[in-house]
Amino acid sequence: MESVQDIIKQALLAGHKTLSEYDSKKILAAYGLPITREVWVNDPAAAEAAAAQIGYPVVLKVCAAGLAHKTEQGLIEVGIKNAGELKAAYARLAAHARQLEGGILVQELVKGSRELVMGLTRDPQLGPCVMFGLGGVFTEALEDVCFRVAPLDEEDALEMTREIKGRKILEGVRGLPPVQLDLLSRGLQTLGRIGLEHPAVRAIDVNPLIIQQGRPVAVDALIVLEKPPAEPAEAQGVRGGLDKLFEPQSVVVIGASQTPHKAGNDVIQNILANEFRGELYLVNPKGGEILGHKVYPSIQDLPQGIDMAIIILPAAATPQTIRDCAAKGVKAVVLAASGFAEVDQQGKTLQEETIQAIRETGVRVIGPNTSGHTSTPHNFTSSFFPLGKIPRGKVSYIAQTGNFATHTMRYIMSGENYGVARVVGMGNKLDVEESELLEYYAEDPETQAIFMYLESFKRPQRFLEVARRVTRSKPVVLLKGGATSEGARAAVAHTAALASDDRIIDGALRQAGIVRVYKYSHLILAAKAVSAMPLPLGNRVSFSAPSGAMLVCMTDLCRRHLGLRVPDLEEQTRQRLQEISPPYIRMRNPVDIWPAATVSGVEFAYREGTEAVLKDPNIDAVVPILMLTDDTGVPPLDFLVELAHRYPQKPIYVTFSAQKKHMDAAKAFLEPRGVPTFPLIEEPFEVLSILARCRQAMNRK
Amino acid sequence: MESVQDIIKQALLAGHKTLSEYDSKKILAAYGLPITREVWVNDPAAAEAAAAQIGYPVVLKVCAAGLAHKTEQGLIEVGIKNAGELKAAYARLAAHARQLEGGILVQELVKGSRELVMGLTRDPQLGPCVMFGLGGVFTEALEDVCFRVAPLDEEDALEMTREIKGRKILEGVRGLPPVQLDLLSRGLQTLGRIGLEHPAVRAIDVNPLIIQQGRPVAVDALIVLEKPPAEPAEAQGVRGGLDKLFEPQSVVVIGASQTPHKAGNDVIQNILANEFRGELYLVNPKGGEILGHKVYPSIQDLPQGIDMAIIILPAAATPQTIRDCAAKGVKAVVLAASGFAEVDQQGKTLQEETIQAIRETGVRVIGPNTSGHTSTPHNFTSSFFPLGKIPRGKVSYIAQTGNFATHTMRYIMSGENYGVARVVGMGNKLDVEESELLEYYAEDPETQAIFMYLESFKRPQRFLEVARRVTRSKPVVLLKGGATSEGARAAVAHTAALASDDRIIDGALRQAGIVRVYKYSHLILAAKAVSAMPLPLGNRVSFSAPSGAMLVCMTDLCRRHLGLRVPDLEEQTRQRLQEISPPYIRMRNPVDIWPAATVSGVEFAYREGTEAVLKDPNIDAVVPILMLTDDTGVPPLDFLVELAHRYPQKPIYVTFSAQKKHMDAAKAFLEPRGVPTFPLIEEPFEVLSILARCRQAMNRK
Repeated sequence: MESVQDIIKQALLAGHKTLSEYDSKKILAAYGLPITREVWVNDPAAAEAAAAQIGYPVVLKVCAAGLAHKTEQGLIEVGIKNAGELKAAYARLAAHARQLEGGILVQELVKGSRELVMGLTRDPQLGPCVMFGLGGVFTEALEDVCFRVAPLDEEDALEMTREIKGRKILEGVRGLPPVQLDLLSRGLQTLGRIGLEHPAVRAIDVNPLIIQQGRPVAVDALIVLEKPPAEPAEAQGVRGGLDKLFEPQSVVVIGASQTPHKAGNDVIQNILANEFRGELYLVNPKGGEILGHKVYPSIQDLPQGIDMAIIILPAAATPQTIRDCAAKGVKAVVLAASGFAEVDQQGKTLQEETIQAIRETGVRVIGPNTSGHTSTPHNFTSSFFPLGKIPRGKVSYIAQTGNFATHTMRYIMSGENYGVARVVGMGNKLDVEESELLEYYAEDPETQAIFMYLESFKRPQRFLEVARRVTRSKPVVLLKGGATSEGARAAVAHTAALASDDRIIDGALRQAGIVRVYKYSHLILAAKAVSAMPLPLGNRVSFSAPSGAMLVCMTDLCRRHLGLRVPDLEEQTRQRLQEISPPYIRMRNPVDIWPAATVSGVEFAYREGTEAVLKDPNIDAVVPILMLTDDTGVPPLDFLVELAHRYPQKPIYVTFSAQKKHMDAAKAFLEPRGVPTFPLIEEPFEVLSILARCRQAMNRK
Repeated sequence: MESVQDIIKQALLAGHKTLSEYDSKKILAAYGLPITREVWVNDPAAAEAAAAQIGYPVVLKVCAAGLAHKTEQGLIEVGIKNAGELKAAYARLAAHARQLEGGILVQELVKGSRELVMGLTRDPQLGPCVMFGLGGVFTEALEDVCFRVAPLDEEDALEMTREIKGRKILEGVRGLPPVQLDLLSRGLQTLGRIGLEHPAVRAIDVNPLIIQQGRPVAVDALIVLEKPPAEPAEAQGVRGGLDKLFEPQSVVVIGASQTPHKAGNDVIQNILANEFRGELYLVNPKGGEILGHKVYPSIQDLPQGIDMAIIILPAAATPQTIRDCAAKGVKAVVLAASGFAEVDQQGKTLQEETIQAIRETGVRVIGPNTSGHTSTPHNFTSSFFPLGKIPRGKVSYIAQTGNFATHTMRYIMSGENYGVARVVGMGNKLDVEESELLEYYAEDPETQAIFMYLESFKRPQRFLEVARRVTRSKPVVLLKGGATSEGARAAVAHTAALASDDRIIDGALRQAGIVRVYKYSHLILAAKAVSAMPLPLGNRVSFSAPSGAMLVCMTDLCRRHLGLRVPDLEEQTRQRLQEISPPYIRMRNPVDIWPAATVSGVEFAYREGTEAVLKDPNIDAVVPILMLTDDTGVPPLDFLVELAHRYPQKPIYVTFSAQKKHMDAAKAFLEPRGVPTFPLIEEPFEVLSILARCRQAMNRK
């Protein structure tokens, strides 16, 4: 596209920050986007000729580089009917045009009651992002827009047209023809291409994009330019070798301590408690022995070729220690110290020196400012928060917080009965960051579901690229901290997070198949559910409740807020439910279970009722709401464990309307046997909603 | 408004279901609503004269009674510039007009890029309801509309203009003048008045209502008529006398049973366990003695003038038993039996007979199909689900479900440490219903907050009228079951609920100051919070967390999802926080508490940090997120109890990032001492959001 390059080059040379409407549209047209028929003119006679050629009514606009908000400035005359009107309008606008060193645009009048907007913006982290939404006066008023990161494929673009709240106007409303979605989709993809091919294009507005007999036409457009910033020369850094972190054969703790409750002691206790089977070395200038292990006085005294070092020393010692380790052939280090860029200017300098040491040595690094990482299949943790033996499981965490190696893990271990495979608290992520970890987890047979807490993306494009692949085979759930301005402020204080426009993040995550959550607790509850149970095959739920009010409320919740369906049952299922119930009640989904419990006993009713819906092909997941009180009777709950084994395709999540002691007992019985329970009645449905969205992402084209 | 009456009468006589646009607008104009200038004509010459008088450009429309969707049918010509165009347009439309037995409307062309809609609909339960929202093609596409029940006051109407998502277009966007809200507000109020004054008006559409230089003009309008249905002759029924239900001096159980675990026995056990201080009588044909109380063989054998009877007999015996009780001077009864209209046709007949008996006797009745009611200040319950001693508290429930007298109460008693004042499970609410109970609770000094679960409104207008008053002095929280179509289906099965358009309900509840919740659990958690702590004075929260990620996530949650503010602190507060923290961290709200805990100890940090923000005038509520693990140390928590006493204006809600056993211990220690705890980190914020909205309702004009 020679001409496009030329237009941009000329404008930059002339020092223009925005292209004129005419030039902006020339670029769009060069890329095949439908624009208004229009002619640039410099005298009244040319204007008249152009109008005659285009056909009345026409629009006259002042057109100049650097000109935006023409309507507000009165620089447009709409609906000019004839030569007489044209003359008058031209005379008025020409004065403005001269002043702005521009010309006049004679343009066809595009009629249509549906105004859309599409655009492009260059996100500092994600690069060119395409926008789509309602246009005209509604763009700012409703902010009904969505984003995707370039490049967009057809499905990305079509998804955008389904994502806006006003999507119905794209259909044939009020006797209007439906919008040609293929054209819309092509337009959105094209904008992304322009952004990728022309780094000097800072932003594009196509607003309004008017729908004329179903076809979108760019009626006005604005392209904003900017000298492309020099690509930050990102040190590629070494990649690979994460197995030295997750499966070390030998580990050294540098800064090992005799003193209980000090990090340099706790980390050793943790390693021993987790029954690490590799070699464990300790370093402390004092020498001697700690917990039965010999202490080397210095790194220099260590044998050559230890896989990993856990460095528990003051921040200032970090760069030299990395070099010393590398000299001894250490492949990976965990940096516990804080006091780097997250603190002050001095820390920033130290961080730069640390980066330098990492680059020079090629050592792989977690941290600094990390609370450690865990790899249960390898019986290993570098956490220096006392945890004891961490249970092994099939979910893995990537966390831009130390919580999952410390108190949150403590809560999980003590309050929820599930284990983990890999956990990394990334700290300041000078080296190892989320995209590489995600890739590692993707290939990791031990990891069946991935949960993340992130406040920033270090290599956003790489991250999304990896995520796009991973999410087709494993559930990936993300809590993104720092979403609101106040949240983002707190984020700056916490690490050194760059806040990104939340709408862009939202679009990027959807595009990548990542399921976004907004509650910290969901990183725990959904992980527990997917640890114990299969991922649901869809969003169709059946639940049984001991109360009509609960049937009603949970149905409302599923449909209104959670995107879950509570579908009709097969006739056969219905009949089975009817068989176990008294005749006066007409059974269906959701299942009003208590009448059956009254006539046939609590265990029988829940067992038969649950099995009936588990068998039903219309149902993807089942939630029994157990009533457990002294007086109504507390049945043995083995039947739930048996049903879970018998129907391994369908998750069963248990919740309660019960006495607290029976809830606790049921949890203590069921969870170690693989059936997750949830104290609050809404929780299993919230979790199901998250996991059903994961499944949807896995199923996408 | 003679003419309005006439127009409607004529149309009804002519059998018209809708008025013509011309007549519809005449009615609007008679009520002072601004409409387009227009003339009804029947020949081309008159059309030309009208157009000349109005001034070109004009619009020509076919106008006839019973005509809707003119645009889609091509019955409008917009933007006619001159006599020539007028002639052609007239000729084309006149043919259609003749066919429809109508005429032609010559109308000014109203220009404006903002199209709104207002309207009126007659809700079967709530009567005339006014709608407002985005108009034109967006009415259906965005469904960005809201409702209020007539009559509307000015504040109701203004609230509607703030409630729609597109409210920004009412401001001065894109160089347009702001919409004159006083005119909009007057228009909305007027529509309500029309609905109230003309029962034959079934619905009104004013669409589009175009904004012309800031003034709304009705450009098209449609009034739908319907012969007003005869007002259902609602038997007024007796009112008052609820004190016999809540404070009975004497009670008789009819259907008392010897057999443990039967309702007729459990109810006696409950009454005894609650230490009822009035007289207790029992009736059973077998006579004898039950639990030390003499059993009368029949109602006839009872002494005269017992306050209340709890009737635990088969449904069929109900009407006669009511009459027998009344004959003995009983003032109130509780009907436990189910098997009425909620079951089948036979039950419906029985229900009619029961209503008859209630009307004849004037006895006040809870039920049938109720699981009972509770009044702890009077040491009384009629619940026949074994509960034991029910703790006394200051929240009261109105429930269209038996749960709060049965298993949910069991959960509250065993799992949450709060008590109740009054609880009514209304059952089929043949007599006592929510509006009267709400009124009773409003006056009840024992009730400080009201929580409701409703699936239908028996006297909706009365209910809203009462609620409008009550909500100015007490928090009123409602979970409305049956909101979605699937939910509503379940509702039909449950009682015999009439589902109402959820948007109308939503508007009506806001109008009445009732705070709507969507989670069943919130009826418990918010009640617990308000039982222990004062109602927050506003929505400004401070919280302290042991983790940056939690600071970030909870700030996001408060701002994005919960309508809470996390404001800046006074400088004095900030200084105090800085004093207790290491210098490298800059303290603010939310409070990053762990560095202080590290240097000064966990108890000191949380105590001083919590007190500092409690003192801050910018803060209405405080949430300490406690880290409690064996290794970081578990401090005594008395300080929280002391702070709660010292700052009685500000609620403190506690949550955790902790080991389960310490969470449980903290709950067991704090809750009986008046400090509520919440196991999931998001719960205190969700509860605060609900209660801050209650406060907002109480503060409204």
